[in-house]
This record gives sequence, C-alpha cells and structure tokens, in this order.
Amino acid sequence: MSAPFATLSDLAALLRDLPGPDAEAIVAARARDATLTKPPGALGRLEEVAAWYCGWRGDPRARVQRPQVVVFAGNHGVVAQGVSAFPSEVTAQMVANFEAGGAAVNQLAGVAGARLDVRALNLDRPTGDIATGPAMSEAECVAALEVGWDAVDPAADLFVAGEMGIGNTTPAAAIALALYGGTAADWTGRGTGLDDAGLAHKARVVARAVAANPVRGGLAVLAALGGRELAAMAGAIARARTLRIPVLLDGFICTAAAACLEAEARGALDHALAAHVSAEPGHALLLDRLGKAPLLSLGLRLGEGSGAVLGMGVVQAALACHSGMASFAEAGIDGAPDPDA
Amino acid sequence: MSAPFATLSDLAALLRDLPGPDAEAIVAARARDATLTKPPGALGRLEEVAAWYCGWRGDPRARVQRPQVVVFAGNHGVVAQGVSAFPSEVTAQMVANFEAGGAAVNQLAGVAGARLDVRALNLDRPTGDIATGPAMSEAECVAALEVGWDAVDPAADLFVAGEMGIGNTTPAAAIALALYGGTAADWTGRGTGLDDAGLAHKARVVARAVAANPVRGGLAVLAALGGRELAAMAGAIARARTLRIPVLLDGFICTAAAACLEAEARGALDHALAAHVSAEPGHALLLDRLGKAPLLSLGLRLGEGSGAVLGMGVVQAALACHSGMASFAEAGIDGAPDPDA
Repeated sequence: MSAPFATLSDLAALLRDLPGPDAEAIVAARARDATLTKPPGALGRLEEVAAWYCGWRGDPRARVQRPQVVVFAGNHGVVAQGVSAFPSEVTAQMVANFEAGGAAVNQLAGVAGARLDVRALNLDRPTGDIATGPAMSEAECVAALEVGWDAVDPAADLFVAGEMGIGNTTPAAAIALALYGGTAADWTGRGTGLDDAGLAHKARVVARAVAANPVRGGLAVLAALGGRELAAMAGAIARARTLRIPVLLDGFICTAAAACLEAEARGALDHALAAHVSAEPGHALLLDRLGKAPLLSLGLRLGEGSGAVLGMGVVQAALACHSGMASFAEAGIDGAPDPDA
Repeated sequence: MSAPFATLSDLAALLRDLPGPDAEAIVAARARDATLTKPPGALGRLEEVAAWYCGWRGDPRARVQRPQVVVFAGNHGVVAQGVSAFPSEVTAQMVANFEAGGAAVNQLAGVAGARLDVRALNLDRPTGDIATGPAMSEAECVAALEVGWDAVDPAADLFVAGEMGIGNTTPAAAIALALYGGTAADWTGRGTGLDDAGLAHKARVVARAVAANPVRGGLAVLAALGGRELAAMAGAIARARTLRIPVLLDGFICTAAAACLEAEARGALDHALAAHVSAEPGHALLLDRLGKAPLLSLGLRLGEGSGAVLGMGVVQAALACHSGMASFAEAGIDGAPDPDA
C-alpha cells in the first residue's frame, strides 16, 4: 500500500501540511506573459490559468504533456430509497462501456490526448444506506481513499477525477448540506432525470441522511455521507496535490468529494480549478462556497469527468500560448505598451 | 477569379439564395443522440452543437477532421484619428509573427489541429479614414471580399476567420452603430488598451464615421465603414456557407463583419455559431442582436481568431461524443429512460 495514511486522522494531518505552489515560478510566468506578442490581458482567463499552472508545476514555461483522467465507480445503498431514474446494475454496465471505449469520457479523453483509467470499487457491495446510517466505516473509507491515491500517475501533469455511480448525486447533496448548511432542497437536483415528485422525495432523503449522520469534519462527512467513488476521488485529488499535479474539478459529485478535503484543511484545493459548472443546480452553489469560478458553462450534467476533460483543452491551450508564443523582442514588434503605463 | 460576383449587388443576390442545412441529417443526428450511453440532455450544449454541425455537413454522424483558420490583415486610415494604442506598423509585424508561428493563434491552431493561413491585404495602402468618408470604394470592397472567398479550402469542415488590423475595433464599432443604432458609446471599447480619455475620443470618432457615411444595407455599410480584413472575413464566411462548412465566429471585429451579411440577407449566418464572447463590451451586445449565445466566456480580447479557434475544441469534442459513443444497445445497458416518458 503506497498511501501514507492508515486512518482518517492520518490523512487529516497530511492535509494540514500540503505543499504550496512555487511562488518564484508564478512571478517568472507573469513576467514572461508581459513580454508576449499580445496586448496585456488580451488572453483573459487563459493568462491566469497559465500562471496558476506554472506555479504548481514549478516551471515558468510549462506545458501540458501528460494529462490523466481516472473514472472511479461505486454503488450506493441509498438507491433503495428510490432516488435515481436508473437501477444500480447500470454502474457496472457503464464501467464495461468505459473499458470498451464507448462512453462520452472516452471520446473526450481522446480529443484531449489524455490517458484514461477506470477503477471500479466493490460494485457488488453497495455502501450503507445513508438515509438510515453511515455509508462507510472508517476502514472502508480509508480503503477507498487509497484506491484514489494509488490511481494517480506520478508522471501526469494535469489530473481529472471522474465518477460513475447510480444514485451518487444523493450523497453529493448530503455532503454539501452537511458541510455548508442551508436546506436539502438547495442542494438537490434531478440527477439523471427525476420528475418533480422524484425531486421532492430525493430532497427528503437527503435531509434524513444528514439527520441520521450527525458528524463533523470534512473526512468524517465523506465517510458517513459519501460513497466509495467519492472517497477515491478525494484520495486522488489529495495525492495529485502532494505531487504538485494541477487538478480540474468536474461536476457536482466530484466537487462535493473535493469539498470534503477543503473542509478538513482550508487551502487543500488550491491546486484545483473548476473546469465547468454543470446543470445540476447545487453545483454552482458549491463552487461559490469554494470560491471557484468555472472555466466553462455548457449545461453538462453527465459526470464521468466529462466537463473537466473538456476543460483540459482550455488549460492545454492556455499553456500552449503562454509557453509557445514569441515575445515582442523575438518578433521584432514595435510599440509594446509599457506595462507600467 | 473564382468568386461568382463582380459587384456588391451580385453578392447581395447570392446571399438571398443560400443553401440551408440538411433537415434529414438533423433529424437523424437527434435520433442517434437519443440512443447514446448517457441520460438524455446530459451533454448540454454539446448535443445542440452536434446536431447543428451534422445538419450543415449533411451527415448524421459527422466529425471535425479538417478545420481551417484564415487570419486576414488590413490597415485603417482612421488610425490617423488616434484611436489605437499601437501604430499601424504593428499590423505587418504581426503578419510576420503569424507566418513565423509566434502568435497566440498559431499555438491555438496547433492545439486544435487546424490549418492556419494568413492573407495580408494591401497593408501599405490603408483604407480611407472613415471619420471623413468611405473606407473603400465598391471595387476595393469587392476585391477584399474575393480574397476571403478564395481563401476558404473547399475540403475544410470547420472554418474560422480571424483578423489583425491596428485600429480595427473602430470600424467594427461604426458598423455596429450603423446596423443596429444606439449610441457610439454603446459599441465603443478600449480595444488593445485605451485609457478613459482615449475611449471617449474613440466614441466621438465612431459617431463621426457613421455621420460621414450615411449608407444603408449590410454590404454598403461594410464597404463604407469596414476595412479590407473585415470585408475578407465576410467573403470567407459567405463562401463557407455555399460550401456548407460550419463557421465559428470570433470576437467583436469578426462578428461585426459577419453581421453585415446577416443585415443584407436574414439567415446568412445560420451556419455560424458564436465561439465566445470577448471582453470588448460591444461584442455581447452584437451577439445579442444576432441571437447567438456564445459557447465560451473567458475574457479574451485579442482577435486573430483566437477565441474561435479555442471554440473549435468544443465543437470537435461535441462531434467526437456524438459520432464516437456507443448506444445503449451496443453497450448492453439496461434502463435507458424512455425518451417519450
């Protein structure tokens, strides 16, 4: 087992001692940006993305060359409460679809030139029904965190954690309610396609889950209200941080899993950007609580890492410009505006 | 000369008789979408983009394989009015930078796998100063339209017209004011970096230009208030339509040029999507008047086709999903929701 934690409190201690970005690389990246053949600021958010990425990579002229996507899959006892339009069997069927290359995330990873791995976590053994008790014991949660931790390729230079798990917008909503408060309805959406009655029922299940699991602390919330694929995503995102691999957050479920890290240790998601805001209404609210502005807003609500893999293209483009463009001096161009003017 | 027009009224007649999309291909593409291994609607705008693209290509399972970008460059007499932070010499210097591969659009085209061509239009002969009279005679405008028309590769399957022309947000603002009304200030922005006084002066120049050129009709406005690179962009976008090549619109200048086609013949831009909304404030207003919702909003304000080439990645991703994903039946997945339910 490579993960340097055996308990949730080991991991919590690790999260309180994470590496930050390389401040000198950020300064050097910004200095480089000011020399490039464009008006200052003209590449908008691409400039900010490039500086952020260079900081985490410790390289003022970094490029994205080895992006990795891992899709984690799990099943959920709470599906017994009738919270999803699809049956749990679909989780394993979709894992087979990922492995055969037929899902949306396979096509998107192909466009991004990203490596795609799949990790199915005990699909034949759903987590406990959060409506009545905890999803996982501490040992089960640690085991799932380790699967995520171990799935990250240390040679990757941009990471996305995707997920598949029928019913998993319910644990995501329960996590958000437990971490940030409000009402269950604030955080509950239609998932793969509930009608109005289904939506109202799901919100009641979310409220019951939080009442049935009165725990505090990000990792305790993850264990009690999450699911194996959510814990694995959190483990992978934490591992990426220790390797200084920048992360793109996907949709509501990925962001809820990641939020458990931030709740446990403020700043734990500084290496993560929000790739997109999904159509699941709790996602925008969650990103707002995390202070993260999404790169894309295209109405996606698929999961699998799909929105984040689409966002990889934006990050690749930002670094291609930053690290590939000529400077005014190199191009022999007059009249570069004085950046201090 | 391959262009089938010798006058602006020839082109106007051509614009009133443009081909539409293939309705059967759109229906077939939507039917295919409903079979794919995802909840209906879960890919959000990517689904709409795929159906639109398939319609124009006449292929319900189309992919983007030969994207093309052409950057058109021109110089502007109105620069004599002091409307830009850069001198006109920079236009030719940037053309050399495009040809050497050092500009932002080169890097972005590389990421998108797009062919990039550059067409400089009489850079040593700026157009007339629109503050006092027309930019171009009809013959000059037709010649520029023809450069654009001829620049489109008939084998391309996605097209972007980019531009470089110091001072060219001024003609773009003048076109928008002439076509849509309002005040000059509504359409005037800081371009490459004017201060408040420069911005106010530029708005006065825009107002004078429209007063000095009291013409009506989209192509007449293009000739009187545009510039050679704007006319070339319009010619290229019209040519793409005759070839049923879908177009992504770039920022304010590209969209202003394209708007002349739509003003001349309603529907002339049905084959064009707005790739992004730029930080130049008139752009959002212009897209609103055209009824086009941008795919991306990343604060870009560079031109060169940069935002549209970034958007090519989204269109490529949409078609990769649409045409590459497995169906529920192919993947052997249960419980596909009934699309009629």
